This record gives sequence, structure tokens and C-alpha cells, in this order.
Amino acid sequence: MINEKLLTPKSIAVVGASNNTMKPGGKIIKNLVGNGFQGEIYAVNPHETKVQGIPSFASAEELPSVDLAVLAIPARLCFNIVKTLVEQNDTKAFIIVSAGFGEAGEEGKKLERQIVDLVDRNDACLIGPNCIGVMTPSHASVFTTPIPPLTSDGCDFISGSGATAVFIMESGIPKGLRFANVFSVGNSAQNGVEDVLAYLDETYVPGVSPRVKLLYIENIDNPDKLLFHASSLIRKGCRIAAIKAGSSTAGSRAASSHTGALTSSDAAVEALFRKAGIVRCYGREELTTVACVFMCKELKGKKLAIITHAGGPGVMLTDALENGGLKIPQIPDSPARQTLKEKLFPGSSVENPIDFLATGTAEQLGEIVDACENDFDVDGMAVIFGSPGLFPIRDVYEVLDQKMKSCKKPVYPILPSIINVKEDVAYFLSHGNVNFPDEVLLGKALTKVIHTPPPAPSELFLEGIDVDAIRKIVENAEDGYQSPEIIHQLFDAAGIPRVQEIVAKTETEAVLAATKIGFPVVMKVVGPVHKTDVGGVVLNVRNVAQVQKEFHHLNRIEGVQGVLIAQMASGIELFLGATYEQNFGHVVLCGMGGIYVEVLKDVASGLAPLSINEAQSMLRQLRSYKLLKGYRKQEGVNISLFEEIIVRLSSLLRHATEIKELDINPLLGNEKEILAVDARIRIKK
Amino acid sequence: MINEKLLTPKSIAVVGASNNTMKPGGKIIKNLVGNGFQGEIYAVNPHETKVQGIPSFASAEELPSVDLAVLAIPARLCFNIVKTLVEQNDTKAFIIVSAGFGEAGEEGKKLERQIVDLVDRNDACLIGPNCIGVMTPSHASVFTTPIPPLTSDGCDFISGSGATAVFIMESGIPKGLRFANVFSVGNSAQNGVEDVLAYLDETYVPGVSPRVKLLYIENIDNPDKLLFHASSLIRKGCRIAAIKAGSSTAGSRAASSHTGALTSSDAAVEALFRKAGIVRCYGREELTTVACVFMCKELKGKKLAIITHAGGPGVMLTDALENGGLKIPQIPDSPARQTLKEKLFPGSSVENPIDFLATGTAEQLGEIVDACENDFDVDGMAVIFGSPGLFPIRDVYEVLDQKMKSCKKPVYPILPSIINVKEDVAYFLSHGNVNFPDEVLLGKALTKVIHTPPPAPSELFLEGIDVDAIRKIVENAEDGYQSPEIIHQLFDAAGIPRVQEIVAKTETEAVLAATKIGFPVVMKVVGPVHKTDVGGVVLNVRNVAQVQKEFHHLNRIEGVQGVLIAQMASGIELFLGATYEQNFGHVVLCGMGGIYVEVLKDVASGLAPLSINEAQSMLRQLRSYKLLKGYRKQEGVNISLFEEIIVRLSSLLRHATEIKELDINPLLGNEKEILAVDARIRIKK
Repeated sequence: MINEKLLTPKSIAVVGASNNTMKPGGKIIKNLVGNGFQGEIYAVNPHETKVQGIPSFASAEELPSVDLAVLAIPARLCFNIVKTLVEQNDTKAFIIVSAGFGEAGEEGKKLERQIVDLVDRNDACLIGPNCIGVMTPSHASVFTTPIPPLTSDGCDFISGSGATAVFIMESGIPKGLRFANVFSVGNSAQNGVEDVLAYLDETYVPGVSPRVKLLYIENIDNPDKLLFHASSLIRKGCRIAAIKAGSSTAGSRAASSHTGALTSSDAAVEALFRKAGIVRCYGREELTTVACVFMCKELKGKKLAIITHAGGPGVMLTDALENGGLKIPQIPDSPARQTLKEKLFPGSSVENPIDFLATGTAEQLGEIVDACENDFDVDGMAVIFGSPGLFPIRDVYEVLDQKMKSCKKPVYPILPSIINVKEDVAYFLSHGNVNFPDEVLLGKALTKVIHTPPPAPSELFLEGIDVDAIRKIVENAEDGYQSPEIIHQLFDAAGIPRVQEIVAKTETEAVLAATKIGFPVVMKVVGPVHKTDVGGVVLNVRNVAQVQKEFHHLNRIEGVQGVLIAQMASGIELFLGATYEQNFGHVVLCGMGGIYVEVLKDVASGLAPLSINEAQSMLRQLRSYKLLKGYRKQEGVNISLFEEIIVRLSSLLRHATEIKELDINPLLGNEKEILAVDARIRIKK
Repeated sequence: MINEKLLTPKSIAVVGASNNTMKPGGKIIKNLVGNGFQGEIYAVNPHETKVQGIPSFASAEELPSVDLAVLAIPARLCFNIVKTLVEQNDTKAFIIVSAGFGEAGEEGKKLERQIVDLVDRNDACLIGPNCIGVMTPSHASVFTTPIPPLTSDGCDFISGSGATAVFIMESGIPKGLRFANVFSVGNSAQNGVEDVLAYLDETYVPGVSPRVKLLYIENIDNPDKLLFHASSLIRKGCRIAAIKAGSSTAGSRAASSHTGALTSSDAAVEALFRKAGIVRCYGREELTTVACVFMCKELKGKKLAIITHAGGPGVMLTDALENGGLKIPQIPDSPARQTLKEKLFPGSSVENPIDFLATGTAEQLGEIVDACENDFDVDGMAVIFGSPGLFPIRDVYEVLDQKMKSCKKPVYPILPSIINVKEDVAYFLSHGNVNFPDEVLLGKALTKVIHTPPPAPSELFLEGIDVDAIRKIVENAEDGYQSPEIIHQLFDAAGIPRVQEIVAKTETEAVLAATKIGFPVVMKVVGPVHKTDVGGVVLNVRNVAQVQKEFHHLNRIEGVQGVLIAQMASGIELFLGATYEQNFGHVVLCGMGGIYVEVLKDVASGLAPLSINEAQSMLRQLRSYKLLKGYRKQEGVNISLFEEIIVRLSSLLRHATEIKELDINPLLGNEKEILAVDARIRIKK
């Protein structure tokens, strides 16, 4: 429960303040003062009356009323200080930077819990412990540098690691990335990344609150909360990019089943991010580049113009964007193109990339941008302009700055000469712009952004799904792998089509069953475990006489308890399965069966519950999608029916979290119908 | 024909020298002087007697003998100056930075040719025109900045674009990348990228010449030369990384056939680079990161230790490396691990990543590196050490510097705090080290390097290949698609197994043919074009009686000229084809046939001629490799036979460059044999 006192306190007390700025308690004071905090700052240090010119108190008891307290003292001293402040000084917000708590063992965990209880009881909020602190446009209560530009049009940034937060800012600042609120949540004692995000969602004011959120996450404790608030913020117009570190460790976790071998909690993270509309990043450079893309105007299509004064970077950017699915369309001939061409030096190209040569001027750049904005059929522009170091190029960057502000289309500036025209680039950034020093990293970031889907709708598909029946079946089921009967009941309750099956004890029953189901049928012995090995499965039984014959044959097998008569499904072998991931819920996997899933690993995943749109996008991700649709003379499957079955399965699972593993194998489909032939379900309550 | 005068001239004349350092002719003088050129510098400027303190001559005629001339004057004046210098002043090396030549139209092309002729006739060398110049450890004859550190242990860098060369250096310098010789080849009038590389190969002295070569290429005019010298240099111990810009434009080129749709000249570039052992990069940041990897000691295995004082970057690097196929193995418990653990602060981890906490010291770092070097089973180390900005960390970087020099295993330094400890990082770089500010970009570069194969052997596989016969067949063939007879002759001459086929005119001939080939056979009508449509193909003919019956049946079809009796091949449908790429030769494509090539695009490519190793690595790249080997109950194909057929085809093609398109379809294989059933070959002379 973050509160306003944390973000915009009128007064801040630094407990453990020091004159030594190489100590955290000294650096926090320095940062607060240096960054121009407008309210009162109080120091608490028993040995000083002034700390860096700030009045210092011998103990917390002596402090006046204070909104926010930052504690940089040994862990064992923190509880009493918090108690004094929260009970006597009306302090409602705490940042504990000190280590030695939960991360250090049982003793520390206990201490941490006591402080959380105390803070909770008093309706106060706590960031940390074991963190670098918090920065907002109002105050920089951190013991680290650098302090980035803190403005309300910057990014909000929530980090599960303090050092990583520092390194991410060091990666972003040279690109001109500005920040608004930076939270280092440390041990997440009261507030983790999800909780801070929830607060930012709940207090979001369109047009006022920061629009871009960056997350660095090591553990997702509450995936539902993350999903809910990330989706909500994005629907309100925000953009979110996040790193979830640890994809490989999770990937190597031993898998419990054939399906599980393809899932992992990283698949769950991936599915969660896609569902929420979060752009997933894997490194600092990538995160800050995506953040810079977010700081530009929104790209509303896939067509870009590349404006450059140097061939090479223009070509490399074209490669990166086209390979990533964006378009660098040739500008068709037109009066506007003619007019533009006349304004450029001979030898310039007005196709696309638009190359206005090494000698190109600021004025020409302005003309090109205007033409792209008003006349050419493109959705955005990338402008590449560096310098061989002969003379300053400030005039060009001035025009670029103006155009970026006046254009409705996004303009992505690529200023590669971070050495030659360092000052000019700094001037450009000082006007609130970002810079992409490497065109290919921009290209990849843009590609990633454009391919991230919007948040999935949160409504649950319930048409024809008997939730009560599902609950009853699951509640009565025992732990372990379920019998065919229970599986059938569950599928029927969820409207998942399956082959009809009837167990016959006598020849007459067998004939009746086959007639009811319709020929051809499959006959299977009931009783023996390894049916195929004992010759207990007969496919393609086409008439009554054959049923009679096979019944007698099967009935002679040792251990026979009956004969199962089943509908004979046909078509393409499909794959549909799910595993339950602790906290996340079910990751649903789908694709074509057999080698497609086992060898080619051509599987799409999504987080239950799924919408039809999500199922659609899952299927379209498959390399084998063309085969599913029917390729050449090969019949495909009914795609919309497959989508519906995926959605139905996901709704079933959402109401049966006790199902830890589910595997429909095989699921056979053609253009008319798709039928589950066999399935495995494991329940654990 | 680059010569030594270009690299280590005793005297340099700058024609068009100026006092205005914002002009190329002024900046070149400034760079030469500023970079401490040890020989004589002469200026040529009719209006000055001194230029920037350097003696200036009114005309080239007045100059003394001079080794190298740099021309920064209008294009039309260049010929006469070169003529004077090369004929009267014993000048053997020229750099023309001026534009207005070949790139500007016909007139310029003519001028350029005249100068090349003149230079050629006089055994002199020319770089440019239309370039930024040349830098070597001896002189910086460029009109641009920055001038990177130029030392013989830096990289050689050859660029097809001047501006891009500048931007690449601006990307490399902040990482500590040093350079040796930098060539901007401009219009490549006499020397292109390949020619400069050839010179570097021919003059290579192991242990003395720069070991790392970087290339930025826009056009590969002479792929054979590039392949030959790149391979040669790499075999001598060099490492080469290159950008070939323009992958997307080429990729969109309309394809002329089903095979061609998957090929493109970019596939040829890709195949060429892989064959040569060149690490292919797609952007500046990537190129300079790979170059920094090359500057470190060679990684001789796949196991890395990650040493870090901050969790986050360690995890992200683990992800990047493990996902890229490297290993971050857990360090097993051992006395050495115990001893190390005791030297670190409580809470440190000595598994892997080795995390020695935010409070970790320089001394501890030294101990960890020593343990990784001497005791732990790893092939290299990545050390992550930044700073939250509280105090300088020079002692840590001093230890790191020493250890990097003393260790036999490579140590990759990741110093992310390029703001907080800017001076310490600069100090570290000043000791000749590189830095990887972003761990994930390092991880990707390292992955790319480790996955680039060594140069392929250059011997041609000729066992059982009748080159004379191939030449005779091709020389006698007419342009266009070839008849089955010619295709059979070619395959037989190359030892490519194919189904046996005999055309029978009578029933007796048909029976004899079938008996000779062996049952079952396929019978096809000869004459009608659409054989299948007229019922002219009969599969699986099993005995003499059936041959007789089908012969009569087929013989009744309109337009019949005979009946073809063919061996009935069976097994997995394979794909093998090739297209001829201008200058490159044949790009050979292979994979599984049908949907694997058409829908799943699971195709591997290589440049003819191929070795068995290359064919092996092509097949292993396929996602369907497991299926080729035989999956579950499904029979596979004879892999080593498939490899041999790929190699044989490539050797055939190497002797028949007139074949522009070749497509074996189908090629059927099982565990015993692989047979070409049908093929299409197009010849154009």
C-alpha cells in the first residue's frame, strides 16, 4: 500500500545521516539536497548537530512530525525507530535501505516481519529493506548515483534489484531517457513490484501520470496482480516493458511429463507478458532502447521512411526493420516527391531510404520530414544523422528537435556520432529528446514493440460450460491420473467434443453400440493395460458382422472385462495440453501433434483463461499453421473449431486449478470436426 | 595492389591542404600532425607558403620525392596531379578522398578509369576515390575524427563506406576497441575490400600482424577472393567479423523458381561467410562487440564462470549464454571451492554465477579469478563489476587488469557503470583492455562467435567424379531445361545415385527391362506431357504378368512413344537443389522434401564446392535432423550417404557453372539407399 507521502512528502528524515558521502546515510542527504528537494530535510545522527548543513537530531524522538523517513542504520535498530516515528511523529512512509533482513537469514526475516506488521497496523507504507531507495520528481531518496533527470514525463521504473536499477539507469541516461518515479523494492517486505504497479494503476490520471513503465523482475510472486494492473495500465494508454531475469534456470528445471518438457515457468512468464501486453526484454540495453521507443510518439502502422545522410546505416536499418516485419516502402513517384527531389542536392535519393547525402543540410532535412509527415504514405520516420567531425551540426539537430515536436507521426532520431558531435547530441537530448545511437538496436526494439499484442480481454468464455458440474467432478475426484469416465465427464461439461464410447459386455450390446455410434468404429478390449500389445485394438470396423466377429476375438483375451466401442475419428493429429504453474495458473499449449510437437517443437502457449483472439494468435504463431489450414491437396482442420476447443479447455482449467497436468493425445481433426480421442488428466488437490 | 608505401610512408604530401580545419584538406594535415606522423609532411596549396606550420608548395611539380600523396581537390584536377607525382616524384601510393568520380556519373567513371590506368601502369596503389582515407599506426591520413588508438595489436578494419567507418569507430572506441590499419576504400577504383584483405593475407606475419580483421561490406565484387583470403587468414590464426549490409533488399528479389524462392544472394553471402569462417554481424554495435570478444583470449570450450558482485546482470548473462548454447556449469563442491568460499563474505555464492556481493573486494575478485583459472572446470570467465557511485573502485579494476593479462583463460570484463565510475573505466581501458558495458550484448556476441565454424577445407571432392564427362555433357547441351537423358548422364558422371530407367518399345523389352531393374517397378508412358492426367503412370508393378498387362494398357494412350520402366524408389522424400548466384557460384540447398521445405522452410544452405564436414553441418542445422536420422518407429535415411550425395552434387556444379538451376525432386531415401527419382536442370551459357 504505497501512499502519497512516499511520492510527494513535505518533509523527510534521514536516520543514520552522515557527513561522509561515501556512506549511504551521507549520500542520501547529498542526493536530496543536490536534487533540490523543496520540503524540510531532517538528519538523525547522535553525534552531530548539523549534517551537510542540515539540522541533525540526536534521536528519532526529538524529530518533529515528518512524512517520510529513510533509514540507513543497522537492521537491528530499525524496528524501534520505525515504531517511534509511526506512532509519535505521524510518519506514513518508510524507506529502509539497510541490509541484514530477510535476505540474511531467519533472524532477519523475523525482524522484517515485525516491521511490516507495525507499518501495516499504522496504515503506513514501506519500501525495502535492502534497497537503494526511491526517486520521484519531488525527491531523490537514494544512496546511489546517477540521479537521472526526474520529470513527470519520464518513465516510471520499478526494480527488484538495486544494483541492476543503477546499471539500467546508466544504460538509459546516455540515450536521453528520463525518469519520473524510480522504486527499488529490495526485499519487497510490504511492497513488491506488483504492488507498486497496482498503486500506479489505481492512481493513474490520463495525460498527467507517466505513460511509460519499466520493470526489472526477478520473481513474480503475484502473477494475477501483475497481469491485472499491467493490462489495466496499458488499456489506459500506458506502455510497459519488462525484464524477467532467470529464463534459463527455469528452462532447465526437470520436466514432469511429456507436455511439461515443453513448458517451464519461463513459458508461463512469456504467456503472462503476452496476455498483459508487456514488451518482454532480456537485457538492459534492450530495455532502455524499448523505453526510448515508448518515449517517442506511437507508431500506428508498419510503414517507415528512413531519412539518412549516410548510406550504410540506412541499409542496416532497412535490413533490421524488414527482417522484423516492418516495411520500408518505396516512395512512389508523385508531384510531392518531385518537389522534394528538387530541393535536395543532385545525387540524393527520394525513394526509401531517403538519402540526402553527406552534404545534406538542416533545411533539406526539414523539407524531407515535412514531406514524410504530410505527403508520403508512411507511418513514421527514422532520421540518421551523424558527423565525420569536420564541423558542428547543431542546426540539423535543432530542426530535428522542432520537427519531432511538431510532427504527428513518430520520428526516431539516430545520432551515431556520440564522440564527434558529443556536445550537439547533448544539446539535442537536453531538449527532452531521446537518441538511438545504434540503428539496428532501434530496429530490433521497434520490431519487438510492434509485435507485442494488446492486452487480452479479461472476460471468461462460459458459453455451454457447466461450471457447477466441473466443480462437482473435480471435488469428488481423487488425486492422481483420472479414469476415462471422469475425463469424459469433464470434457462434456466443458463442451469439448470427444469420440463417443460405449462399453459392451455382450455381443448384442456391442452391435447396438456400434449402430448407435455409426460405422466405422474402433473396438478396444477393456481390462488389459497394454491393449495394443495383446492385439486388443481393432480399427476401422465397418459393419455388424465385423463387430460380431471382433467381439468374440477380443472377448477371448486374458483379463478382458468388456469391449469398448468407440467412434472412429480421423484427420490430422493435433496437440492440446496444459500444465499448472504455481501462482500463474495453467499454461495451455497447442499445435500439431506427433513430430510437430515432439521433434520440431512447434508449439504455441497461452495463459488460461484464453479468449478466441488469443487462441487465434496462438495458432497463427505456429510454423505449421499453413498445414492446419490445409496445404495443397491435404485437408486441413476446422480452425475456428480448434480455437473454440482451446478456449473451452482454458475455461475448464480456470475452474479446476486442481488439474496439474492435462494432455489430449490424440486430438484428431478434419475440416468438419475435431474430436478428443484420448486424454490424460492428473489432479492434485 | 596495396603496397608498403601506403602503410608506412616516409613522406606524405597533402594536395589541397588548407588552414581551415573544417575542410578535408585542412583536417588531414591536422590529423597527420596531431597523431604524430614521424616522416615528412608536405602541403600543396598555391595560395600559402605554410599550412598549419607545414611547408606548402604551389604545385605538385615543386614537391620533392614523396611516398604517399593524399588528394583533397576537385575530381577534375586529380589526374594531372597523380600523373606528375607518379611520373616525376616517385610516388607509389595515393589516397583520393575527393568525390565526383564513379559515383557521380559517366564523366566521373571515365576520370576514375584514367587514374587507375595511370596508377596501374606505374605500379602504384590507389585508395578511393570518394573515401575518408587511411589510418595506420604510422599515419592518420583521414579527414575525419575520431582517430582511435592506432596500435599494431588493434584491429584491422576495411570499410566500403566512409561515414559508416566513422560510426563504427565511434561505437568501438568507448568499449576500448583499438585499431591498427583502417582503410576506407570508397569507390574501390583500384582496391576494394577483397583486395585490401588479400594484401593483409599475403603480408601476414604471425605474432606481428594484427590478428583481428573487421569488414564493412556493401558489395562483394569478388566472392572467391574474399573466401580465399578470409579463410587463409583465419587458418593462420586471425579472427574476422563482417557486416554485409543489404540482406533485405536481396531477400525480396523475385525468385525464378521454387528453389530460388528460398535462395537469394543473401543466402549466398551467408553461405560464403560460413564457409570462410567469418562471423557475420548485422549492426555496428554487434560488430564492435564481437571485435572486443576477439581482442580477448580465445575461448576454447563452452563452459564459462560468471563472477559478479550483483545478482541481476549475472542472471541475465546466464540466460543469454545458456540460451545461446554455452554452459554456466554449477561448480561442484571441492576443497578448492571450500577454500574460496572461506575467503568471501558470508552470503556469497560459489556455485555459478559466483556472486561475491555488493561489498566484494578487489582481493576477493583476485581469489575467485585464480580459482576459476586453476581449480574450476571452466574455459573462461565473465566478470561483472559496476558501482552504485559511493566510492571509486580502481583497486578492483587494477586486479581485473592484472588477472586478464596473467590468466590463460579468457576473462570478459563487464563494467556497466559507465557513468558512476567513468574515470575508473577509462583507467581500465587505458591499460589496453576492452569493456562490455552490456552483459547480454556480450552474451549474444560470444554465442555468435562460438557457433561460427572454422573455415571449410578447400580441397574438392573428386572421388568417382568424371570431370571430363561432365564438361563434355555441359558443353554439348543446349540452353534451357535439360532432357532426362542429359540429367542421367550428369548424375552418373558425378556418382549421384538415381533410379534405373529403361524405355521399352515392345512388351518383351518391357519385361526384360523390369526383370533387369528388379521388382517392383514403376511404368510411365513416354510421349504425353501430362502423364498423370492421362493415367500414364503405374506404381508398384510387381511381376511379369502385371508388366505385360500394364504395357498394353499404357500403349493404348494417345501420343505414346514408348513405356518407361523405372526402379521403384521408396523412403523419405528429401530435398536437394541449387541455384547459381552471379560471382558466388552455386548455393546448394538441402533438407527434407515436401512440407518441410515448402511450408516449414526447414532448409540448410552451403556454397559449392562442399566438403563432407560442411554437408554434415548443413544437415545438423535442420530442425528435422532427428527425423532424417529416424524417429521412433519411423525409418530414417542413410545420413552419410546423403552427405556424400550433397558433396557430389556440389562438385558436379563446381565443374558446371553453366547450370543455373538444379532441383532433385523427389529424392527418396531410406536406411539403405538414396535415389534421385526426378530432377530439373536449367543450363544457360
